[in-house]
Amino acid sequence: MSTSPADQPGAHDEHGRFLQQAVDLAGRGVAAGDGGPFGALVVLDGEVIGEGWNRVLSSNDPTAHAEVVAIRAACQRLGTFQLTGALVYASCEPCPMCLGAVYWARPAALYYASTRHDAARADFSDAVIYDEIGLDPAERSIPFRRLDVPKADEVFQEWLDKADRTAY
Amino acid sequence: MSTSPADQPGAHDEHGRFLQQAVDLAGRGVAAGDGGPFGALVVLDGEVIGEGWNRVLSSNDPTAHAEVVAIRAACQRLGTFQLTGALVYASCEPCPMCLGAVYWARPAALYYASTRHDAARADFSDAVIYDEIGLDPAERSIPFRRLDVPKADEVFQEWLDKADRTAY
Repeated sequence: MSTSPADQPGAHDEHGRFLQQAVDLAGRGVAAGDGGPFGALVVLDGEVIGEGWNRVLSSNDPTAHAEVVAIRAACQRLGTFQLTGALVYASCEPCPMCLGAVYWARPAALYYASTRHDAARADFSDAVIYDEIGLDPAERSIPFRRLDVPKADEVFQEWLDKADRTAY
Repeated sequence: MSTSPADQPGAHDEHGRFLQQAVDLAGRGVAAGDGGPFGALVVLDGEVIGEGWNRVLSSNDPTAHAEVVAIRAACQRLGTFQLTGALVYASCEPCPMCLGAVYWARPAALYYASTRHDAARADFSDAVIYDEIGLDPAERSIPFRRLDVPKADEVFQEWLDKADRTAY
């Protein structure tokens, strides 16, 4: 029977160490005034290949959450849009945006310390956004409205007809 | 009674025109080989202030979805991390990552044409990721595991204690 990295002796200690690094990055971001108290890193084969903290305020970018920053950095370093076999460490449970980013990058697993409820107590919207996802799109606090557009389907067919397309 | 932009005469036609532009952007992205068939734009007071198409493949960035690209561009143009009063037009229903990005940017509303199910038929994971969100974090296909880390709470307190913090 094969063992995953998480099953190996001492793995818990290693995960704890990397998570502590993610928390430390969060503290650095707060001290720098770059954004909220969130840090993340991406590890492949025991090596940190990407890291970051929240830079929403300093970069005027609402998508510059720690996990997104770390995933983008790791992908640039590897020259790929996939993080196969990597592990993501986040100081706090990812918000839905960051959860989605993790799924698209496809690492093996994610470890986190604080939760969406801890974030909510510090006035962050993570838990609210999780709740909004389950609502009818048109009934959300930011309404998502579907309209028919002629030929909207055609771009999907153009994609599927592309002989050299890279699926992802 | 005040009327929102969506309630005004002719508003549906305008939304349809901007959505068609988003679909056109999707087609341009496919033709360029930059990524999947997705386009988006951000409109404020009738003016396009940010646009983009999926660039996952060309930029080796799994977060470079059309909505994220367009939101980032609009925020850079405005010099802010919030899109108050803006409208987002997306050729396809946002995936959870892009839904989250929209919530953090806080526009007034979003309009879309195709759905997560149309995307699924073209082999994109949007619907799968929506389904995964509802699962217990540790039971997801990419497991999310919580570990206790000493002092993880302290970074939230450091944030809350910051006299000059900008809430977002």
